[in-house]
Amino acid sequence: MAKIFDYTEVAKHNTAESCWVILYGKVYDVTSFLNEHPGGSKVILQLAGTDATEEYDPIHPPGILEENLSAEQMLGSVRPESLPTTEKTPVQTGEVQQDGPVDLESILNIDEIEAVATKQISKKAWAYYYSAGDDLFSKKFNNEVYRKILLRPRVFVDCTNCDTSTTFLGHNVKLPIYVSPAAMARLAHPAGEHGIAQACEKYGAMQVISQNASMTPEQIVADAKDDQVFGWQLYVQTERAKSEAMLERMNNLPQIKFICLTLDAPVPGKREDDERSKNIGSNLPVRAAVQEDASVSKTTSDAKTPSPPKAMGVGQSLFWGTAADLTWRTTLPWLAAHTSLPIVLKGIQTHEDAYLASLHAPQIKAIILSNHGGRALDTAPPAVHTLLEIRKYCPEVFDKLEVWVDGGIKRGTDVVKALALGARGVGVGRAALFGLGAGGKEGVERMLEILKAETETCMRLLGVERVDQLGLQHINTRMVEKDIYDGPAGLERPSLGSRILAKL
Amino acid sequence: MAKIFDYTEVAKHNTAESCWVILYGKVYDVTSFLNEHPGGSKVILQLAGTDATEEYDPIHPPGILEENLSAEQMLGSVRPESLPTTEKTPVQTGEVQQDGPVDLESILNIDEIEAVATKQISKKAWAYYYSAGDDLFSKKFNNEVYRKILLRPRVFVDCTNCDTSTTFLGHNVKLPIYVSPAAMARLAHPAGEHGIAQACEKYGAMQVISQNASMTPEQIVADAKDDQVFGWQLYVQTERAKSEAMLERMNNLPQIKFICLTLDAPVPGKREDDERSKNIGSNLPVRAAVQEDASVSKTTSDAKTPSPPKAMGVGQSLFWGTAADLTWRTTLPWLAAHTSLPIVLKGIQTHEDAYLASLHAPQIKAIILSNHGGRALDTAPPAVHTLLEIRKYCPEVFDKLEVWVDGGIKRGTDVVKALALGARGVGVGRAALFGLGAGGKEGVERMLEILKAETETCMRLLGVERVDQLGLQHINTRMVEKDIYDGPAGLERPSLGSRILAKL
Amino acid sequence: MAKIFDYTEVAKHNTAESCWVILYGKVYDVTSFLNEHPGGSKVILQLAGTDATEEYDPIHPPGILEENLSAEQMLGSVRPESLPTTEKTPVQTGEVQQDGPVDLESILNIDEIEAVATKQISKKAWAYYYSAGDDLFSKKFNNEVYRKILLRPRVFVDCTNCDTSTTFLGHNVKLPIYVSPAAMARLAHPAGEHGIAQACEKYGAMQVISQNASMTPEQIVADAKDDQVFGWQLYVQTERAKSEAMLERMNNLPQIKFICLTLDAPVPGKREDDERSKNIGSNLPVRAAVQEDASVSKTTSDAKTPSPPKAMGVGQSLFWGTAADLTWRTTLPWLAAHTSLPIVLKGIQTHEDAYLASLHAPQIKAIILSNHGGRALDTAPPAVHTLLEIRKYCPEVFDKLEVWVDGGIKRGTDVVKALALGARGVGVGRAALFGLGAGGKEGVERMLEILKAETETCMRLLGVERVDQLGLQHINTRMVEKDIYDGPAGLERPSLGSRILAKL
Amino acid sequence: MAKIFDYTEVAKHNTAESCWVILYGKVYDVTSFLNEHPGGSKVILQLAGTDATEEYDPIHPPGILEENLSAEQMLGSVRPESLPTTEKTPVQTGEVQQDGPVDLESILNIDEIEAVATKQISKKAWAYYYSAGDDLFSKKFNNEVYRKILLRPRVFVDCTNCDTSTTFLGHNVKLPIYVSPAAMARLAHPAGEHGIAQACEKYGAMQVISQNASMTPEQIVADAKDDQVFGWQLYVQTERAKSEAMLERMNNLPQIKFICLTLDAPVPGKREDDERSKNIGSNLPVRAAVQEDASVSKTTSDAKTPSPPKAMGVGQSLFWGTAADLTWRTTLPWLAAHTSLPIVLKGIQTHEDAYLASLHAPQIKAIILSNHGGRALDTAPPAVHTLLEIRKYCPEVFDKLEVWVDGGIKRGTDVVKALALGARGVGVGRAALFGLGAGGKEGVERMLEILKAETETCMRLLGVERVDQLGLQHINTRMVEKDIYDGPAGLERPSLGSRILAKL
Repeated sequence: MAKIFDYTEVAKHNTAESCWVILYGKVYDVTSFLNEHPGGSKVILQLAGTDATEEYDPIHPPGILEENLSAEQMLGSVRPESLPTTEKTPVQTGEVQQDGPVDLESILNIDEIEAVATKQISKKAWAYYYSAGDDLFSKKFNNEVYRKILLRPRVFVDCTNCDTSTTFLGHNVKLPIYVSPAAMARLAHPAGEHGIAQACEKYGAMQVISQNASMTPEQIVADAKDDQVFGWQLYVQTERAKSEAMLERMNNLPQIKFICLTLDAPVPGKREDDERSKNIGSNLPVRAAVQEDASVSKTTSDAKTPSPPKAMGVGQSLFWGTAADLTWRTTLPWLAAHTSLPIVLKGIQTHEDAYLASLHAPQIKAIILSNHGGRALDTAPPAVHTLLEIRKYCPEVFDKLEVWVDGGIKRGTDVVKALALGARGVGVGRAALFGLGAGGKEGVERMLEILKAETETCMRLLGVERVDQLGLQHINTRMVEKDIYDGPAGLERPSLGSRILAKL
Repeated sequence: MAKIFDYTEVAKHNTAESCWVILYGKVYDVTSFLNEHPGGSKVILQLAGTDATEEYDPIHPPGILEENLSAEQMLGSVRPESLPTTEKTPVQTGEVQQDGPVDLESILNIDEIEAVATKQISKKAWAYYYSAGDDLFSKKFNNEVYRKILLRPRVFVDCTNCDTSTTFLGHNVKLPIYVSPAAMARLAHPAGEHGIAQACEKYGAMQVISQNASMTPEQIVADAKDDQVFGWQLYVQTERAKSEAMLERMNNLPQIKFICLTLDAPVPGKREDDERSKNIGSNLPVRAAVQEDASVSKTTSDAKTPSPPKAMGVGQSLFWGTAADLTWRTTLPWLAAHTSLPIVLKGIQTHEDAYLASLHAPQIKAIILSNHGGRALDTAPPAVHTLLEIRKYCPEVFDKLEVWVDGGIKRGTDVVKALALGARGVGVGRAALFGLGAGGKEGVERMLEILKAETETCMRLLGVERVDQLGLQHINTRMVEKDIYDGPAGLERPSLGSRILAKL
Repeated sequence: MAKIFDYTEVAKHNTAESCWVILYGKVYDVTSFLNEHPGGSKVILQLAGTDATEEYDPIHPPGILEENLSAEQMLGSVRPESLPTTEKTPVQTGEVQQDGPVDLESILNIDEIEAVATKQISKKAWAYYYSAGDDLFSKKFNNEVYRKILLRPRVFVDCTNCDTSTTFLGHNVKLPIYVSPAAMARLAHPAGEHGIAQACEKYGAMQVISQNASMTPEQIVADAKDDQVFGWQLYVQTERAKSEAMLERMNNLPQIKFICLTLDAPVPGKREDDERSKNIGSNLPVRAAVQEDASVSKTTSDAKTPSPPKAMGVGQSLFWGTAADLTWRTTLPWLAAHTSLPIVLKGIQTHEDAYLASLHAPQIKAIILSNHGGRALDTAPPAVHTLLEIRKYCPEVFDKLEVWVDGGIKRGTDVVKALALGARGVGVGRAALFGLGAGGKEGVERMLEILKAETETCMRLLGVERVDQLGLQHINTRMVEKDIYDGPAGLERPSLGSRILAKL
Repeated sequence: MAKIFDYTEVAKHNTAESCWVILYGKVYDVTSFLNEHPGGSKVILQLAGTDATEEYDPIHPPGILEENLSAEQMLGSVRPESLPTTEKTPVQTGEVQQDGPVDLESILNIDEIEAVATKQISKKAWAYYYSAGDDLFSKKFNNEVYRKILLRPRVFVDCTNCDTSTTFLGHNVKLPIYVSPAAMARLAHPAGEHGIAQACEKYGAMQVISQNASMTPEQIVADAKDDQVFGWQLYVQTERAKSEAMLERMNNLPQIKFICLTLDAPVPGKREDDERSKNIGSNLPVRAAVQEDASVSKTTSDAKTPSPPKAMGVGQSLFWGTAADLTWRTTLPWLAAHTSLPIVLKGIQTHEDAYLASLHAPQIKAIILSNHGGRALDTAPPAVHTLLEIRKYCPEVFDKLEVWVDGGIKRGTDVVKALALGARGVGVGRAALFGLGAGGKEGVERMLEILKAETETCMRLLGVERVDQLGLQHINTRMVEKDIYDGPAGLERPSLGSRILAKL
């Protein structure tokens, strides 16, 4: 009954007026769906008239196709031998580029995990994970700033025992390390976010699920007990109803303990590595994405440039539909109306905003100091700077909220330093994705195993048995303190309250 | 009627006594013009008896030949087949060195524009644009100092709208970015300064025309509406009458809104890359230009060295005739006598001079903090230092004058940082010339498009909608402040007024 | 009478149930010895059923085999021609990898000694000596911090005479430089620690014998007069009786003047170079050692991971059995009960611990500021930092104890700087081992000769005749002082006594 | 009459008992001269029985041979064809290693002069000139510290005129730049120190003649008018009579205006490049020179090492016989007894010694802040540090003495910065020698021409007409001031007078 199409027939339907695509060997007419696509119509139009399976598969949860298209939109099948042959990338074929299987136990540190994964995953996946804003200054600085903090080991202390367990928002975890909401895990490995969840279960680690995960939240937590700790990341959508529907789903998943509202990327940063890679494996010409686009910005300075549809990097297409109009006044009450889960604010980068967040306890129960892994604004401050800024201007924040940090964690000593500065826990994003790329679920486990062992060695050599014993006496921050914000240049140290409250 | 010469005949007239040159196939006797040449006689004598077209063309405005030579000085034509064959450089032939046309949209940032242009323009043009003083310390530091300023992004701020428009001296522009007075644009592309003007029109950007432009001001503004914003750069000539004549022309061009008097290069800096390239494509031996020359300096220490005519870099030949005797007392009144246009002083590098300039408002309406792109004095301070110096010693300057800056701008974050420090706008010089080299008018447009988009992304991620909202609270300058001038070493902080006024 | 075995027969006994090994051509049944091995059973099981001579020889003192195994455990001999052929490493064959003999006098500095030795010793030995914690930050910083201290040479001072002699704990030595307790010297050269002792005798230098020396203390001091100065390093064993027996032996050796209790490595640091090399020359697959091991840690967070026996680097196998439960309260009285030799505490890294140690004088007579050559905790502070920290918070420590330092010494100027900061002497570890590798006893002599000559040249050029004249006036420490611990960030400078005493 | 020897006969006389050498084809018996050789006997014994011409020629003034040996010590001639053939080095043959003659005018800066010379001079000469102490830290830092000082250009100042003339000790010179006492100029070029003198005459520059010049003072000043300004460097000899004889000669040379007593190298620094090169071109095995030598040191710690004669680098052989027992108390009165010429002290490196020197005015008329070009003690402070130290602790020194500096000068901006800090003039050593190597007298002229032109450009762009107008207001030293000695760490700022006077 289903019709068999020749590829040349499909290829003719490559416009907004008649847009067909091939997915998993089936031919779909997606013309009427173009305006409904959460990622925007452009992404589909780029692939109109072609086999879009390779592009589609790793970034869409299984089942989403059937959920969104009606039966009549499936027109039939494509004659396989009529398809043009293209070189397969590793992700598509499941083949690895290096010889033989990876011996995960020979990997000794987080940098080596990235190196192994880089050889195994597709160029596109690498570019999406590796990329950061502009010149990658903040990405690198995130890590380097930890090297500028010296440890202060105490001797003659019994270090037989070492306990890395702690709590996040009152929930027990075995590690002060969690997996940050990092999108598109299936670009790295078919196990995807579900594989990460299983690795976290083994090591007692928390996981924050990205809104842009390549699997549905339900799929990710499918095998998790109710007391495994997950959070769900919310990018509020311009169409609020979509976000409200998602919040409703989260309210019904017992493993989801909190909503992590991401604030540090109201518009996408400029990730050039990602933009360069966006059509690797396709025939589209390379095109940059800095050009203005009416769907993102209502620019009041009208440049009168025509804005033709252009290709985008993975990072940019994920942004389509994200709201840029969130505020303290409007967004928090809206959230309260749709969920009673605790709120964690991700992306705080100044002491002023940390202080403002503390005024919204207990709806807000934690903040994450983050510059989005250096992926949003280049030369934004690393979390270590913001920790020290809060200590300098408004240390009372630590009493009202949990403070988590992410960005630049590569060693157990980095974990310990963040905790000594007052952080309750540290998130790792790229390390988890590269772990997945290096060896699926077992690769993520190896990553957690390494960081746990390094953290324990560091605690023991400092003479510390429990994470709550770590404090400022264990670190020398002189080299960093001299760079911490000292108020507007040339002015008196600002009055914190007056300046901030005016912003509310 | 016109005589036909053999090249060997022309070649005999290669002295100051009888000096012939070939230009565009015609033979000219320029013996009597030698002493009138604004660039000095030496430059011509180097080419005496040869075909000087390649040297002459890109650095002289069209029509200037006819304007300066009488009919009888044109002796006839050269027999083409008698000319020696020489390898053409890219600029001369219009050929590009890389394969295929440049896809401007694949260029993602300012460094890539320079890289693309470097492959396309002649070595001589590259050397002139790229070169800077001595060891290029200030050129590099100009940019690096922006990397040492961290941004302070605020969250939970509605950033749907973003407006980059502002005003310069009361004139509306759509960008806080302008094109600095950079000479010799036709070395990069035949579109020249007129092409830059058209790109500026498209993006609503201001352009300051170099006195050493390779097109006349009239040609450059030919297609511009009266409200397009231009300035004209003045290097006061030793023969003041020449400058007075130029001012008269400017007074009659409605697009010219101000005179930009350049002060940071009363004598040429030492640009070794430019000197090394000066006779690429010719047969002259390489000669250095550090030797003293009576026409530049009345050196009181008499070295008794003979000073034979020597070759010069592009930068040095442009300097011939520039006055070195400007002063606050004498030059400003002279200017007032010849133009009522507002004066913008370019090249301020200390708070003392910024303060002095502010005493001359309203004749002076703006100052440009500039070390001439690092091309004048190596280890001169970057504009960021001077901005912080003014904030430290005499912040009232910002109330009396507009403060513009140039040097080292490569990213939208750099633009935003300069504005947050109090600058009204930032100039780009090399970026415009390399944009022209990369793709003519469209290359300059791409440069402006990139910087505009980066600036908008930065403003949004800081939570800022209009440029006038940017302030010191958006940046952390700790890493730079520790290097700012702190008064003479070992002395009390100087009394600003007394020390400066003594200089007037 | 002794049976002759074929290698294939031996190879079958490769389990914990029946474990045979070949040593020096003899076959031993070590099944019952597995649990008694001070280095743990795993190390042996890795070699079960094989010829273990190459692994065994350089890290066990001669005679220890007979001491630990009974006659019946020696089963017979192996048929030599049945052994598999393997490529010999330099240490085993005594062959050197470079051409011709080394001309020790052509070696001009400590870096060159390391370079020469690196060509001559086995990869395994190199990895053990060279390796340091994590990213080798502290190892490098140990040396770089000396480069940041400037010298202040005084002129017009008679520097005809120069005397480098001093005393350690009242014992006369001719150099303020001693050999630190560095393990496994026979990995570098058959002369081993005895060769080091002979070189020290020639230059009047002190030697601290490592507990993990590859020769017994008795063998090392065999040819030394009673007044040659040695110390013995103690790593307290979990089985205290073993340590007590060793102390008893030391009490009876007149050359041993003190016990050096090592505190900076209660658990092994993470030395990745060493881990990577651990089975060079064997057929074992490379395996990492970060996995938890019940015999090291009683981790309260139970990861439920199975912990199969794994290979270890040289550094880790030496750690087996080291106690992690030492404290000020319990360990010092225990030591006092077993030896009346003075105690030197090695591994002090904070002023707090230096101060605590000073409260235990006179049992404790000296402390060694050390981060274990960067081999324990990466980003731990260099000894120079701890020296300056003590000066800043509790300079009275210098009056109560001798303060020795090690780590990063490469030049005579480094020696002089440490002394000017208040150190009584400086230890060199890797330099001695690499000296041994470069040329046996004579290589160690060359190392001492170079450091002595450099130290004398530096003293003369500073205008100093005796080491006790060196003081703070001879150095400029500005570049380092700005990085010294300044108390917990954001808090008042801590009250030293109250914070520390609570720890006792 | 003169006997003809076969080389094999000469070769037999290679001991201290019978020591023959060949010089310029003649055979000499120098047995009885061994103990009289100012450079020590070892240097000769290394060459005993060989043709020593290549070693001897460039480091001995012409005529010195006849002066020191009697007629009977010349035994005869060597049969030329019996000499072994050896590869000639460039200096010996006069051949240059690069193709074609050097175009000196194509050299644009001091680094390029060094690069050109390095290609032309012998490896031995390069090693002697290039080498510095230990790791060359101070040599590099000498220059880098100038890059950390920013200039402060003033605008709107008439800079038509520029005058670089000044005075040294009241004598008129045309440049604030002088040639430092650098030894062994004939290693670079046959023109030697006389060539340097001629170049200095042309540019009106002062020259300080090295005691170890390869020409006699009389030869060097032979063509100089009486008012050309020279100084003579004194290394006081252990045999004071030798120094007294030299002073007597200086008293009779009208061109010698002062005695420059060198204090910064009472013993030779450790110059490894020089030591490595010491027998290039000979057959001696490479031997290091760090071993103790009784003729240099009366080491009280007796190492009992046999000290056989060893080869030395050029730098070390020049040191033979230099006194190490100079003091303020004894040496200045002795000097006063033997010359009434003003004394200039070279090698001051602390404010304490600068202050002490100022107490000895007017016998002492100037001090030279110098770390011997980084050749004495590595990590010794650069002259810029000492300038700032004097400003900080005892600025009155500038009123009592002229302060000259050397070390690290590569640009005219460096010259200007030193002058702005209070120096009266700056010395260049390697630049002069490399200039000589690059092109003889003309190469030195080119060096002076470049530095003069760069200095003038810098003065003009700062808005300064005469060198005496340069001051602290023209430079920003913030980046350097933070590293200046701040008194002993942890102590109150020292009382200058009490601490110093105790030393006298």
